[in-house]
Amino acid sequence: MEEEQLQALLRDLDALKQRPDDPASIDRMRERVVAMMNPAAGAASRSKIKDMSAEVVDSNPYSRLMALQRMGVVENYERIRDYSVAIVGIGGVGSVAAEMLTRCGIGRLLLYDYDTVELANMNRLFFRPEQVGMTKTDAAVQTLSGINPDVVLESYSLNITTVKGFETFLASLKARSSHERSTGVDLVLSCVDNYEARMVVNQACNELGQTWIESGVSEDAVSGHIQLLVPGETACFACAPPLVVASGVDERTLKREGVCAASLPTTMGVVAGLLVQNTLKYLLNFGQVSPYLGYNSLKDYFPTMEMRPNPQCSNPACVQRQKEYMDSKPARDAAAKAKMEAEASVASECPVHLDNEWNISVVDDEDTASSSIRSTADVLPEGLVRELPAADLYPEPPAAASSSAIDDDLEELQRQLDALNSS
Amino acid sequence: MEEEQLQALLRDLDALKQRPDDPASIDRMRERVVAMMNPAAGAASRSKIKDMSAEVVDSNPYSRLMALQRMGVVENYERIRDYSVAIVGIGGVGSVAAEMLTRCGIGRLLLYDYDTVELANMNRLFFRPEQVGMTKTDAAVQTLSGINPDVVLESYSLNITTVKGFETFLASLKARSSHERSTGVDLVLSCVDNYEARMVVNQACNELGQTWIESGVSEDAVSGHIQLLVPGETACFACAPPLVVASGVDERTLKREGVCAASLPTTMGVVAGLLVQNTLKYLLNFGQVSPYLGYNSLKDYFPTMEMRPNPQCSNPACVQRQKEYMDSKPARDAAAKAKMEAEASVASECPVHLDNEWNISVVDDEDTASSSIRSTADVLPEGLVRELPAADLYPEPPAAASSSAIDDDLEELQRQLDALNSS
Repeated sequence: MEEEQLQALLRDLDALKQRPDDPASIDRMRERVVAMMNPAAGAASRSKIKDMSAEVVDSNPYSRLMALQRMGVVENYERIRDYSVAIVGIGGVGSVAAEMLTRCGIGRLLLYDYDTVELANMNRLFFRPEQVGMTKTDAAVQTLSGINPDVVLESYSLNITTVKGFETFLASLKARSSHERSTGVDLVLSCVDNYEARMVVNQACNELGQTWIESGVSEDAVSGHIQLLVPGETACFACAPPLVVASGVDERTLKREGVCAASLPTTMGVVAGLLVQNTLKYLLNFGQVSPYLGYNSLKDYFPTMEMRPNPQCSNPACVQRQKEYMDSKPARDAAAKAKMEAEASVASECPVHLDNEWNISVVDDEDTASSSIRSTADVLPEGLVRELPAADLYPEPPAAASSSAIDDDLEELQRQLDALNSS
Repeated sequence: MEEEQLQALLRDLDALKQRPDDPASIDRMRERVVAMMNPAAGAASRSKIKDMSAEVVDSNPYSRLMALQRMGVVENYERIRDYSVAIVGIGGVGSVAAEMLTRCGIGRLLLYDYDTVELANMNRLFFRPEQVGMTKTDAAVQTLSGINPDVVLESYSLNITTVKGFETFLASLKARSSHERSTGVDLVLSCVDNYEARMVVNQACNELGQTWIESGVSEDAVSGHIQLLVPGETACFACAPPLVVASGVDERTLKREGVCAASLPTTMGVVAGLLVQNTLKYLLNFGQVSPYLGYNSLKDYFPTMEMRPNPQCSNPACVQRQKEYMDSKPARDAAAKAKMEAEASVASECPVHLDNEWNISVVDDEDTASSSIRSTADVLPEGLVRELPAADLYPEPPAAASSSAIDDDLEELQRQLDALNSS
């Protein structure tokens, strides 16, 4: 509630009662009410802040974040304002991820969803009953702009699995925005709830060579996961059947065709927290970004693993990115070596706080093979199971894909998915 | 925003402009505005629901929760309405925990805090800039009653570490409430941010034999933990120095005396999620409740462990509960055996969905010794460090404690804590 605006409204009403012959005051009240109905009005609850300050005063919304610098966790927190993050799917995970990034002061957020808010969503965080009927993107912008007016919000109420929606999605990820500090998008977070939409995000990110983090929650609400996907470097979503965290609940009791999956604010809050924490680590260069992290809530078990790309991947854009990644290996090695030498010379000049702070070392690409999965035939770590049958069981992949042939590919993909769903 | 109420206000204003000589309409508008300022008005955004329904319609806020039953995760979800949970500390963890439980449809929530909302809290979830200046308990009731009017909310704006505050705290935990289905409190969640307050929650729960879950987030914002405390059965907070999850950040760079610790919505959201997930498992009897679960966000590492009570614990109420727990062992064993036999006979009558669904088995109390820590001298699991020096370094504990001598004990405790803080 806009307490101050309501107080002002009360004063106007009291004044009107003293002088009932003042139609101008009625217009003024009308404007006030309309301003309160305008989503952007929430932004008025605090003014924009030009530079992040570390000053320790109650009125500074960034003091606890800038403290990460003083404590040696992050080298330059304010760099977060330079980054743009796209969130696809503003549901139980995506909306909370958006709120976390907004409160962290991210530069720009791009929000994608085609759904509207329902009372049935109230068992998850973020949306409020009075937002029922609004599009999820509108409701999100309304809430987020009120929380932090410094964040540039772009909302796209569209379905990325349609040809038209995919075009807009791809264009928006590439676009140079009005946001002064950023061009394009630094990271895509997939928070969608179905296989088809994940494959579309996978297609877009493979085409653009765009790093993304996938997230998911099981239909029985008690497990979830996040997975980092770097085109050419890690497995893409088409390289292997998606992995899910085994919940321990008897699979036979799950109604896979049911329209109403279970969900919990806890599981979704944890997954959103792990997702955005890894986003912060990735963008602000601290800690270790997890390649895959599962969450089995029944046992509080958190499996990790790495998945390398499949050279026989059905997605041509993925195979192309894999080739580029291998071709650039000499340049990458040289850069890593130069960085290590530079850090070594810095270390000899000033006191060392942490030895090899980011755990950087020059290793051969094959070094991590022991903890990684190369093909779908490999054994999975304990607690992980495949969500879908092995790739061999899928219909033939599209023959070719390139940016100029997106529409055809998408339609082909759509046909295959339809066939898959109806089988 | 109360969209509908604002729309009605607009219509009233338009009508008034047509008929300016209608002072009664001004009174009506005034009432409308006051209703919008009343925190309880938020509840009007949906009406109360008498019984939880599993019906799959967009307008049912409980459909996704009741689906947990159909999926075999929870036997009787609606039992959540019978339970009362107390949350001490409505900050970055406590407020999110309260929102999660509210959205899950908990019967009754008791909220304790003495602080007010500041802009400096906006880097964590839940509170909004327009709530700055309100007490955290008032702001929480305002938001939570709007989200789910079915939850009975009791707020206590008081400091539990004062003698008067402690009395009210203890009385409120014991009180038979107006909430028809519950007497007393089923679980206490500690979400406070300092040692002194934790020791006070510990004292209260030891005196009442009240199970509680402690939670905490490190000053550098990148790690946290939850810990289940069952008086007499597990270590109490005074049995051993509190454990924290090592963050990997150089301890020397932390300003321990600093007034401004760092904090992140991600870490706090994850800890709140793990806390409430374990609360749901505890109350609704599914999965395994973790005795201790840490979260190191830099490495996505989640250490677990168990801590048994210290027979030489400095807290007399803890020692008393330990004695009672040992004395009741024969009765406990008999009950467990009877339950197993009953389940075995049920299993022989109807189809088995899960073998030994709750992993219940009759074990000797000593069976878990291998994975537990008995004294402060024992080696800790990898990734855990002690937050404070060993118990031997503390001043002598109070000589005795009983319900009739709480004030004296608290004052004594206060003196010791003052001495500890000044040393």
